[in-house]
Order: sequence, then structure tokens, then C-alpha cells
Amino acid sequence: MGTLQPHLAEVCGYHFGWCSAGGTPSAGAVPSKFLRATLVLLAAECAGGDAATAVPGAVAVELLHNHSLIHDDVIDQDDLRRGRRTVWSVYGTETAVLAGDALAATAVAHLARAGTVPAREALVLLLDAFNRLCAGQTADLEMERGDAVTVDEYLRMVADKTSALLAAAVAIGAVLSGADEATIGILEAACRDLGLAWQAANDVEDIWGDPAVTGKPPLSDLRSGKMTLPVLAALASDTPAGRELTAHRASGADRARQDLDHVADLIVRAGGRAEAEHLARQRLASAEARLRELAVPDPSRHALTALFRFIVTRSA
Amino acid sequence: MGTLQPHLAEVCGYHFGWCSAGGTPSAGAVPSKFLRATLVLLAAECAGGDAATAVPGAVAVELLHNHSLIHDDVIDQDDLRRGRRTVWSVYGTETAVLAGDALAATAVAHLARAGTVPAREALVLLLDAFNRLCAGQTADLEMERGDAVTVDEYLRMVADKTSALLAAAVAIGAVLSGADEATIGILEAACRDLGLAWQAANDVEDIWGDPAVTGKPPLSDLRSGKMTLPVLAALASDTPAGRELTAHRASGADRARQDLDHVADLIVRAGGRAEAEHLARQRLASAEARLRELAVPDPSRHALTALFRFIVTRSA
Repeated sequence: MGTLQPHLAEVCGYHFGWCSAGGTPSAGAVPSKFLRATLVLLAAECAGGDAATAVPGAVAVELLHNHSLIHDDVIDQDDLRRGRRTVWSVYGTETAVLAGDALAATAVAHLARAGTVPAREALVLLLDAFNRLCAGQTADLEMERGDAVTVDEYLRMVADKTSALLAAAVAIGAVLSGADEATIGILEAACRDLGLAWQAANDVEDIWGDPAVTGKPPLSDLRSGKMTLPVLAALASDTPAGRELTAHRASGADRARQDLDHVADLIVRAGGRAEAEHLARQRLASAEARLRELAVPDPSRHALTALFRFIVTRSA
Repeated sequence: MGTLQPHLAEVCGYHFGWCSAGGTPSAGAVPSKFLRATLVLLAAECAGGDAATAVPGAVAVELLHNHSLIHDDVIDQDDLRRGRRTVWSVYGTETAVLAGDALAATAVAHLARAGTVPAREALVLLLDAFNRLCAGQTADLEMERGDAVTVDEYLRMVADKTSALLAAAVAIGAVLSGADEATIGILEAACRDLGLAWQAANDVEDIWGDPAVTGKPPLSDLRSGKMTLPVLAALASDTPAGRELTAHRASGADRARQDLDHVADLIVRAGGRAEAEHLARQRLASAEARLRELAVPDPSRHALTALFRFIVTRSA
């Protein structure tokens, strides 16, 4: 595989929070939590194996995820991630495209080099998730540009954009530790629920979350006009506030801060926030119920369940 | 692997010249010549095997190449490719980033799914080339932004940006048809020469080529201020014209058409064009000499040699 080109190595180090722009090691950045890598390792344990056997999978999944974050920020033109300036905004779009590409190549090579039969199966799972990530992000873009989107259409997009890599993470962990089909199926199904719960919780957080926690400006999704779950649920609510929201959007009003606060209030009054929060809770409960189906020692199950809860609620 | 998301399928179809923007099948576009795929198949024959065994490698190499073309056009902000508007200029940067990503995922998955030992070796070769492509493009960007670059530094960049995937193409074809190490080594070395010859010829064509053939505006590399081989050779020439070129670049003169013609003329008078043309001829001859080392029936060698010549001279 070789190593990353020196400038790309700095760019990726910056992205992960390990150095400042310029390459000086930095201590102040909020580091990645490596949630997906942890999912891979805990899934390996839940499948009755040793987490160590799944490390190449954990590395590959995390690298592919960060590939998609760097490209996502280019696509959404987001300036901030984890409270720091995004790669494209520091190094330029060109370099961000290449750094994302290089991380994808490195991610895939990490599993391809292993050469075992389970590693090959894991690689196919990773590549399927890679393709679904692209599909989900494309559907997301189409929804932003298009007209009416139903909540169901939104959730199908989320299944590709958010859930596919989470499901691949646990499946890869399980495959690398030699799990049977039934175990893999349960873990994947749990992560499909987890993905929807996470996206719903994220959509709420992106509007009403504390900027100090999200690392993004307040009301950022409203500012960019994104059609997220609370917005879609509010628009579909057939309530006075929902109708006012529809009229407001059609009027093309500008996105001054005061106006955004009003929009956020309309979404609450139309029940959009409550519906998103309900979906997050319900899907998390469903994911946890699936984990209880696993024939696995309690400590492993409890660790994975705790990680699921942390992911959705961000409180350990 | 699954299939491409419908909108991405249209975007990729547009890129390959199979449909217009909007998805209508189109007959007028200049189709891709699939030179790299052909390299894979002819290398398989030159290695004593059957071209059919190398088809998955040919598909993977061609898809990865087109991934990089779509991203390259985003990076360089080029408006035209093969005489048609580039993907990003038609569908937007966001979609072009995702379409490129999806082609990379599809390319890699094509080999990963095969599951044989040669396919795994071919995959590792492809991923190494993928990483080197990113490295070469990054070095290319750094050179555009930076100060003086020597001809040698430029050629090292070309080894990654252009030669690596060509060398991977023949190595993949050879590996998939069961070639020995010596044969693979000869083919790779030949393609490292081929890549330098091609880039040198391309650099000449991008300045002095017929727009009807290149599909790009005349003098396009000069317009964008690219430091290509004829320019670098002219700057390093220690001739009156070379010194005038150095002064001209330092003056930051605008890039009006008349001015570009003058710059092109300075490059010719400084010997930059001749040096690039000489390098193209010399490296092509070296590549052909290497092919003569192969212990292979003449028809196969002749076919590969003819392809090498076509690639560099664009005359069959």
C-alpha cells in the first residue's frame, strides 16, 4: 500500500485532530471518538471472538468513515467539524478531494492486504457500504434540491447514508471473529435501527443542540435549508404551525437569525421535534431488543448496548 | 456490490459519453477509448494467458481511471473533456465528488468479489496505484502552487500521477493470467516508460495540439498557468528565450490569447517543446525495447507495442 503522500499525511492528521494546519502536533483539538472502530471491536466480542482479530476491520471502517466526512464537508460546504475548521476550508477543495480519496484507498487496502477468507468477506461488506454511502449522500443532495420529500423517503436515504456503514462495522467485526450468519444478521439489524435512531437524534441536535457540544453554529441545518426529520415531520403534520411552516418556506424568506428561531419554534409547535425524538427513542429501544437476542455473555452485550446508547444520546 | 444509485448511474453514463445530461442515450459523443482496459487485456495475452481471464481487472482499472478523471476535473476546474462539458460543470461539484467516489468503490469491488488468489494480488496492485494516483495529483497541486520545480521533480510526480496506473494495468493483466515475476517486472518497467512518454507527449499536445483532437481549448495548460514539461524545460534552458519566459512569468502578465501565443513561442525558442518531444520519443523507444525482452509470441507483442505507440502518438 505504501504510505500517504507527505502533504496528504498532514491533511489527514489535521482532520483527525492530531496536528494543526501546518503539521505542528496539537493538544487542543477534540479528537475523533472512533465510534465505528469501537463498534467493530465490540461486535467481534459479541460474536464470541477476540477483538484483536477485528482490528484491521476497525481501522478500515474508521478510515472509510473519515474519507466520507472529508468529502461530505466539501459537498455541504460546512466550515466547522468537531469545533475546528474543516479540511476543505483550510487546505482547499482540491486537496480535500484528494485526501478523502487517499483515505478510501488506504481503508480498502488495509483489508485487502490481510488476504484471509474472512478479510475478503469483510472487504466485500465494506465496499457495499462504500457504495451505499455514495448512494445515500446523492439521494440527500437530490432531496435538498428537489421538492416535497416524505418522512419515509428520508428514512430510506438515511438507511444508506448513515445505517449502512454502521451495519457494515458490526458485520465486519463479527465476520473477522468467525461468527455465524444468524449472529451477523442480528447485529446488522440492530445497527440499521441504530442508524435511524442516531440520524433522528442528530437532526434534533443540529437544530437545538448546544454549539459547544455539536461543534457547529447554532441552527446550522435550518440555516442551510436542509430538509431533516424534524422539518419533514412538521411539514407533514397538518397542524396550524406546520401549515405556517409550509407557507414560510414557500415565501423564500431570508435566513436571518431571528427568522431561524421562528422556524425552529414552528417545528416544535408542529410536533416535528417530538416526532424525531420519539423515533430516536423507539429505534434505539428496538436496537437494544435485538442485541438481547444474541447468545453472548452479558459483559460483551452490555458494552455494545452502552455504546449504542452513547451514540444516540451522547451521554455515556 | 449492488448497482449505482440511479442519479449517479446517469452521471457516470454521461461521463463515459453514453448519454446526454438528462439521461437520453447519445450518439454524438466521442466515447472513451478504454486504453487502460486494453492494456490489461493485451498484457494478459503477452503473459501467455487468455485475455478473458483478465476482464475483471480491465473493468476495475478503467473504472478507477474514470474515478480519477471525474475528480481531476473538479480539482483543475476544467470545463471540457473529450469535447464535452465535464461532470462537475454539468452536475455540480458535489455530485461529481460522489460520482467519482462511487466509481472507485465499484472498481475495487469488482476485483474484491472475484475472490481468487490472483484477484486478490490484482486488487493490492490496483490499490497501490490508487494511493499513488492521489499522491501524484497532490504533488501536482503543490507544484502549481509552489515556486521552482525541476524537470526531475516533475518526472517523479508523473511516475505517480500517470505511470502508476499504467504499470498496475499491465501487472494486473499479467497476474490474472498467471504470469511469473520476471514477466510482470518487464511489463511494469515498460509502462513506467510509457507513462513518462505519454505525459511528455500530452504536455506538448495540451499547448500545441489541435483543439478538435484534444477536446480542450487551445493553449489550455498555458491559460491555467500549469508548470508542465515544455515550460519547465524552457525555464531551465539558460537561453535568451528561457530568461525572457522567467521574467515574463515573474511579471504576472495577464493570460490574454495574444500573450499566450507569445509564451508558447518563447517555449519553442527556448527548446522546451523539443525537449519534451525528445523525452516522449526516447521513453517510448525504451518501453518498446523492454517489450522485446518478453518471451512471447510475436502477434501479442506487436499488439501491445502498437497500443503503446497509439497512446503516445495518437496515430494508430
